[in-house]
Amino acid sequence: MRTKQQYIDGLNKLKRNLYFGGDKVGRDHEALEQPINVIGVTFDAAQDPELAPLCTAKSHLTGETINRFCHVHQSTQDLHDKQDMTRTLCRKVGFCIGRCMGVDAINAVNAVSFEADKSNNGATEYHKNFINWLTNFQKNDLVGSCAQTDVKGHRLMRPAQQPDPDSYLHIVERRADGIVVRGCKVHITQAAVADEILVVPTRSLGPDEADYAVAFAVPADHEGVKQVLHPHFMRNRKQFKRGFDWGVVDSYVVFDDVFVPWERVFLAGEHQHGGLCALLFALFHRHSYSGCKPAIGDVLLGMAAMAAEINGIEKTSHVRGMLAEFVKVSELGYAAGFTASSLGSTQINIPGLGKAPYGPGGFFPDSVYANVGRCLTGEAVFHEQELLCDIAGGVPSTFPFEQELTNEEVKPFLEKYINRQSKVSVEDQIKFWLYFGDITCSNLNGSITYGSFHGGGSPIMEQIAIVSQYDIKARKDIVRNLAGMTTGGKK
Amino acid sequence: MRTKQQYIDGLNKLKRNLYFGGDKVGRDHEALEQPINVIGVTFDAAQDPELAPLCTAKSHLTGETINRFCHVHQSTQDLHDKQDMTRTLCRKVGFCIGRCMGVDAINAVNAVSFEADKSNNGATEYHKNFINWLTNFQKNDLVGSCAQTDVKGHRLMRPAQQPDPDSYLHIVERRADGIVVRGCKVHITQAAVADEILVVPTRSLGPDEADYAVAFAVPADHEGVKQVLHPHFMRNRKQFKRGFDWGVVDSYVVFDDVFVPWERVFLAGEHQHGGLCALLFALFHRHSYSGCKPAIGDVLLGMAAMAAEINGIEKTSHVRGMLAEFVKVSELGYAAGFTASSLGSTQINIPGLGKAPYGPGGFFPDSVYANVGRCLTGEAVFHEQELLCDIAGGVPSTFPFEQELTNEEVKPFLEKYINRQSKVSVEDQIKFWLYFGDITCSNLNGSITYGSFHGGGSPIMEQIAIVSQYDIKARKDIVRNLAGMTTGGKK
Amino acid sequence: MRTKQQYIDGLNKLKRNLYFGGDKVGRDHEALEQPINVIGVTFDAAQDPELAPLCTAKSHLTGETINRFCHVHQSTQDLHDKQDMTRTLCRKVGFCIGRCMGVDAINAVNAVSFEADKSNNGATEYHKNFINWLTNFQKNDLVGSCAQTDVKGHRLMRPAQQPDPDSYLHIVERRADGIVVRGCKVHITQAAVADEILVVPTRSLGPDEADYAVAFAVPADHEGVKQVLHPHFMRNRKQFKRGFDWGVVDSYVVFDDVFVPWERVFLAGEHQHGGLCALLFALFHRHSYSGCKPAIGDVLLGMAAMAAEINGIEKTSHVRGMLAEFVKVSELGYAAGFTASSLGSTQINIPGLGKAPYGPGGFFPDSVYANVGRCLTGEAVFHEQELLCDIAGGVPSTFPFEQELTNEEVKPFLEKYINRQSKVSVEDQIKFWLYFGDITCSNLNGSITYGSFHGGGSPIMEQIAIVSQYDIKARKDIVRNLAGMTTGGKK
Amino acid sequence: MRTKQQYIDGLNKLKRNLYFGGDKVGRDHEALEQPINVIGVTFDAAQDPELAPLCTAKSHLTGETINRFCHVHQSTQDLHDKQDMTRTLCRKVGFCIGRCMGVDAINAVNAVSFEADKSNNGATEYHKNFINWLTNFQKNDLVGSCAQTDVKGHRLMRPAQQPDPDSYLHIVERRADGIVVRGCKVHITQAAVADEILVVPTRSLGPDEADYAVAFAVPADHEGVKQVLHPHFMRNRKQFKRGFDWGVVDSYVVFDDVFVPWERVFLAGEHQHGGLCALLFALFHRHSYSGCKPAIGDVLLGMAAMAAEINGIEKTSHVRGMLAEFVKVSELGYAAGFTASSLGSTQINIPGLGKAPYGPGGFFPDSVYANVGRCLTGEAVFHEQELLCDIAGGVPSTFPFEQELTNEEVKPFLEKYINRQSKVSVEDQIKFWLYFGDITCSNLNGSITYGSFHGGGSPIMEQIAIVSQYDIKARKDIVRNLAGMTTGGKK
Repeated sequence: MRTKQQYIDGLNKLKRNLYFGGDKVGRDHEALEQPINVIGVTFDAAQDPELAPLCTAKSHLTGETINRFCHVHQSTQDLHDKQDMTRTLCRKVGFCIGRCMGVDAINAVNAVSFEADKSNNGATEYHKNFINWLTNFQKNDLVGSCAQTDVKGHRLMRPAQQPDPDSYLHIVERRADGIVVRGCKVHITQAAVADEILVVPTRSLGPDEADYAVAFAVPADHEGVKQVLHPHFMRNRKQFKRGFDWGVVDSYVVFDDVFVPWERVFLAGEHQHGGLCALLFALFHRHSYSGCKPAIGDVLLGMAAMAAEINGIEKTSHVRGMLAEFVKVSELGYAAGFTASSLGSTQINIPGLGKAPYGPGGFFPDSVYANVGRCLTGEAVFHEQELLCDIAGGVPSTFPFEQELTNEEVKPFLEKYINRQSKVSVEDQIKFWLYFGDITCSNLNGSITYGSFHGGGSPIMEQIAIVSQYDIKARKDIVRNLAGMTTGGKK
Repeated sequence: MRTKQQYIDGLNKLKRNLYFGGDKVGRDHEALEQPINVIGVTFDAAQDPELAPLCTAKSHLTGETINRFCHVHQSTQDLHDKQDMTRTLCRKVGFCIGRCMGVDAINAVNAVSFEADKSNNGATEYHKNFINWLTNFQKNDLVGSCAQTDVKGHRLMRPAQQPDPDSYLHIVERRADGIVVRGCKVHITQAAVADEILVVPTRSLGPDEADYAVAFAVPADHEGVKQVLHPHFMRNRKQFKRGFDWGVVDSYVVFDDVFVPWERVFLAGEHQHGGLCALLFALFHRHSYSGCKPAIGDVLLGMAAMAAEINGIEKTSHVRGMLAEFVKVSELGYAAGFTASSLGSTQINIPGLGKAPYGPGGFFPDSVYANVGRCLTGEAVFHEQELLCDIAGGVPSTFPFEQELTNEEVKPFLEKYINRQSKVSVEDQIKFWLYFGDITCSNLNGSITYGSFHGGGSPIMEQIAIVSQYDIKARKDIVRNLAGMTTGGKK
Repeated sequence: MRTKQQYIDGLNKLKRNLYFGGDKVGRDHEALEQPINVIGVTFDAAQDPELAPLCTAKSHLTGETINRFCHVHQSTQDLHDKQDMTRTLCRKVGFCIGRCMGVDAINAVNAVSFEADKSNNGATEYHKNFINWLTNFQKNDLVGSCAQTDVKGHRLMRPAQQPDPDSYLHIVERRADGIVVRGCKVHITQAAVADEILVVPTRSLGPDEADYAVAFAVPADHEGVKQVLHPHFMRNRKQFKRGFDWGVVDSYVVFDDVFVPWERVFLAGEHQHGGLCALLFALFHRHSYSGCKPAIGDVLLGMAAMAAEINGIEKTSHVRGMLAEFVKVSELGYAAGFTASSLGSTQINIPGLGKAPYGPGGFFPDSVYANVGRCLTGEAVFHEQELLCDIAGGVPSTFPFEQELTNEEVKPFLEKYINRQSKVSVEDQIKFWLYFGDITCSNLNGSITYGSFHGGGSPIMEQIAIVSQYDIKARKDIVRNLAGMTTGGKK
Repeated sequence: MRTKQQYIDGLNKLKRNLYFGGDKVGRDHEALEQPINVIGVTFDAAQDPELAPLCTAKSHLTGETINRFCHVHQSTQDLHDKQDMTRTLCRKVGFCIGRCMGVDAINAVNAVSFEADKSNNGATEYHKNFINWLTNFQKNDLVGSCAQTDVKGHRLMRPAQQPDPDSYLHIVERRADGIVVRGCKVHITQAAVADEILVVPTRSLGPDEADYAVAFAVPADHEGVKQVLHPHFMRNRKQFKRGFDWGVVDSYVVFDDVFVPWERVFLAGEHQHGGLCALLFALFHRHSYSGCKPAIGDVLLGMAAMAAEINGIEKTSHVRGMLAEFVKVSELGYAAGFTASSLGSTQINIPGLGKAPYGPGGFFPDSVYANVGRCLTGEAVFHEQELLCDIAGGVPSTFPFEQELTNEEVKPFLEKYINRQSKVSVEDQIKFWLYFGDITCSNLNGSITYGSFHGGGSPIMEQIAIVSQYDIKARKDIVRNLAGMTTGGKK
């Protein structure tokens, strides 16, 4: 396993293919400092004696100890550990830990590449390619980003119907030595600070959309790959320093007729498996949210409780009711992920086909529980922001900036009037409200709310997954029996 | 274990102490037929080869096979089984199965009687009394009701402050051979069709409220016990028969200076244990709701889906979104209960004291998860009714009655105009809408909604439990670390 | 104008065409006593010196003083008065006053019959027919019911697509002296206690659906009209008498090839006007809800406040927040209706055509405000029930029945334990909780909630109306200007 | 009346007492450019022939034509005009117009200064002082800011209980020529770009808090007044220019022992009138929100509709339902304000005293309607943000920055992949999403949401106002009558 420094050294060897601030920049740009710090925590944790048991795993390929973010889950316990690792690390950095997209894509592609080979009766070697790639990935402790979301063009048209066929990434040429792909993946979190980019399809695909059923991995600076950045980060402060400066970077990842050699191709034309690949990445990723969203809930609850304490209203029934709302969302989200792990299996629930084994033995969380949990926590995002706003009052929106808080002419007045005589020092009251504003009234807030709402699939996507996979017929049968009916109740 | 018939025979031997319809009646009154049928299913299930593994348990006292509703939980698996048994049986009867109050009270009193003896240094024999009583209870497969809720008088005053000291049931006399109690317990579900009534305190108690810290069991027809009934039931139909006619009966149970011999007294004056007894009954009962509420959700979802099928709108996105809402509530509630079982232990989380062992080894569900689940499902009650109303339209409220549906003069018209040309026969469409009206537009609906909202504790009670037991300080510490603070963050 | 007794005498002269309880019954059946009492209040009010100014109007046809429920609105003040009359009378009876469907239908048909003639270039005499009919209606102070909702068959098919063409009421024969119609109108409130039934179409209609574009009036006992009843009412009590016993009756009104002479036909084939007739009845009826829903809100708020007073919790912030929710819904609903009246005009807002005069000078409320108000109050129905449940606790669901409350054996106990020592006498506490149960935990509750939710159009219908009539393009233009755009922004 | 340029010239004559960016700055700082532009629109509008009728008024003091933002409302029509002017101007600038605090404070102080004199039997000349000040204010067309919110210290303690008595601004010295005040007013919107600051109390006050009952006006650069700024603004763009660049500035306004001469003092010690002054400013300001919030709703609806149009999903039922939600909130908020104006009077509704005339004849909106409207729109803030997020997807959070959109290396790719083939040009699609991000995912969003939620009083403040002023007793009486009760129903 690598250290954080080795990870940074690796990034600095990559070619400059990032566009930001009007320039082509490298991974050493200051806008990437916070996003890199966040990923760095996953390396530190694997070396930390206390956290290592949770944050490492034994590779089912090599038996070596690897970072859990490189692991193919083998059991309920692996899923429990991934959930708890995610919650633990997100609490340390204060928001998204940024490395789960890689592990979630690995687990999806592991199964899909195996099954596609099987349905091709061995005419393809996707899974062998993938295992070779993964062995290296685990050995070198690489950071993977998952590029899934396409630009999609007209939202009511399927990929094959789009006026611009490149609205979804697809194969434009098949060569003896590999494939050429074209398209653009958007909202790709941490792609700018990843070593490898795993590409998977966005959605279910029809027989006429075989070229869109493509999965592969390329280095983040691969020839023809261009990333346009949108970083979100907490600016360093000079005096009122935070305990951790969080940041993240999203990319538009352009694939400008990119050549991918066969040994890096894991799916190339099997439309049904393309759709399942999209579904399975979403499944694993929604399960990951059962770790990160409760951690974010922990942070938001802590902010709310501390704001109430400083304001002297922590014991009012009104405030306690609001605190309970944070707990409910976090712990119901956690319980859903926990149950999804406990009831997980080597089978998946395929709409129209029911439960069936899929893949070479990887372990899937239960889909209904993974989806109901993600849906709940996604739907709660803006309400949680409202609770914070309610409990804080207008303070974070109009709080003085650091330059005034340290300006000798007004500093004494500000300290006098900011102080609410609580047991928290004035300096800490200032640090607290600055941090509260970082989360709620900064440009970071857009990343926090939009990412928490849409990341891993918007609530509407989970609703669709729930209804299509749930055994509604069984519930209609219950009612038919109770009502004394003998007809009806079709699926 | 008894048969349903043996249970009924037992009821019919009880003295007439039920008041209904202006008369003093026995357990053979027709208003009790449906409530008895419901409890009867718990006897049938224990004899059913398919259901017996779930619905029976091995007594930790005698090693005998007993009905699970008489069992003291010993493990996570016991809690899983209780949850699943409850969901399974509630699906069969279409709503509350009515026997969980007994088992939940048994589990609470088992722990409390043990600890009270311990804190009395063996000067009392509450636990011995309880074990003797329980051994007989298990052996004779009795049905227990739990009488907890007092009339409470002025809601902002504690028991000792009330103008009428009898506003909470209490000990009015201590004799050599037992105690005399006075008071009235209200909303006592199935007390009229139970063999035994277990009495436990309603709330936390102060040192000046020792006489209110009382727990005991009496036969349902015990001298001085009078029950005033409020039954809710589906009336038998003549032609359009249901598959199951559900019903329940609530009682005001008056204790008119009732003498209870010591061998039936399990707590008599230990105020702290009195409060814990209230808390623990609530804990077990809220866990039971993680079984029944998902079952009710199954029924409501089935009703919604069938109504949509009959109306021909089952595939609209609008309807599918509504179906997803039922699934979310049911399965998040189930997941919370499942997680509470998995993370359960022989310890309880006592506000102010933290986690500590309690009782002689019984197994407690995790309190935070038991509470967040119950809170979610309680808060959803009226919204679920709204979804049903939305999807059904005005039909259930104005649907013709059975007398018109069978009146030859209008029957042909009604059948013509009720029919929506679906694959469901007209007769079944009629049965369906009659059943839908039974649940939503009958006097039963009050029992269904008020019971689902308040039973086991209203959502506000779970909010209070959540906030008082959750480790909020740990969340404030997370924020203190992230914000770079060094002071504050008190509990 | 008639007295209540004259109204009753009139009803008793009607032929027996009502089906209830397995029999063909007359208007003197006891199940109709409460519904008749409710309508009776509208006659009493017109004679009451204090209420007459609000509850009567000057006929624009004859100049005579008539009951306002027979009036064609001529001005903003007329609409204000209709709203306030409705709120006042609904407060008196405790729920729906039951006579607004007639006046709302009259106002719609008044305009539609005029415009249909105009578009027929005078080839028809619908408006003359209507004015003649209305002159008699006003003179004899008749009670009109409006039959709009058809059975609709498969909900996603239009009338002309239905397997059974009678799924929507339509003309099956045109004769020299009139038309013959067939179909069944459902959920027709107070049809069983009305003198006249006005029939209007349910929905927008295509050119192939001309036979469905039909409006007319028939006496409630007209040849071929059969009503199947579903009454909802508060049963009389013997000792704990209410101040008013409310009730309502809904009918399935079967039109078994009913002949309607031309002088009672107001529309017969003009499909566009048929759709507008449906729209306009809905518009006037939604405006009526701005009177009745605030009145119901007044009653529910009074129930909540009184329950809180009796329980001693009226001053807690928790309860006061809940009381504020009732006020918000009621007064926002009232304000929407008030504004709809103030901004009303002789023009209507026709989707696709914009604002245009319609009809012979009747006065229309503004459609957007009428719809947003009705939508808000409809969406609040179940939440208001939840608030009542929350504030009352389990009491209304399990409260003893009158027979027990007057049974000498248990009465002393019940009085002792029901009493909460408030300033309200025990007898009044009993009356209050019995009334609370009448509203919330009786079979009446289905009528109250389903009627309040769907009556006048479900919230989804108002959403559709709002979006189709609102000037969304103007809002897109605002954004185009602010963003500096020059293209886009199509309607 | 002045021009925008005269206003700017006036600001530039003020002394430097603004603290921002570590410096003491003048009104010509670039951070104030957008806030000044916003206020500037109110001057342009008064000169615009089309807008002048709405945006000017006839002074009741001088008969001169003045800017409506300087006017004391005399009638329902004045209130209608203020509401419509506010909505019109807010639509032009895209958010808060920033000049209503002044006019709302003027209207409150006009009444309070008059009544305080009256209760002092003419021993004070507050109203004469105010009228003199106002005459000059109107004549010179000044911009007023209202400084109300104090820092408040411990939130559960009253002003007189605070450890630091300066937690609320108060009189520290009374001299022959005036008073000396100390304190700090926070969240004072547009104080940095105002000519005059009107100071009013925050809350109701007790007899021991007379020194906190103080109202006066000072120039914005008055001796001893220091403003610490927190501006929020849209940065100028180079290529993708907006139609209007909105901005606002909030100040902490420190009163460092500020001397105020008597002729500028409008209240100084009358505690009851101090509380009423707070209440009346809130009343007028909440009424102003019935103009601005619908305008913001117009903008948000336009954004949602345009996003849907660009994404090609504008006709889906899902999206149309969301659009309806914006309309409902805006138009119910508008209707509440409209009704408050129509039912306004020269009386106010004083808790405990009921309706009574107050002041020298100014016109007050109805308080219940002003409050229910503000409460609704405040509670909707975060839900509206959620709807925008839902409809937009992740786009605004990760959209490329202007520097990349104009970088020749990636511009062709971005234009290709941003384009959704709608009728909107690619350049306009870019402008649209940049604007969408300005509103939702920028640091401006904090101002927009926190200001919309708390400005004019948080929803909880309106709830308190509603319940304390509403005639709840009358609703309890309705229920007492319906239930047949004769006791109870106290206020």
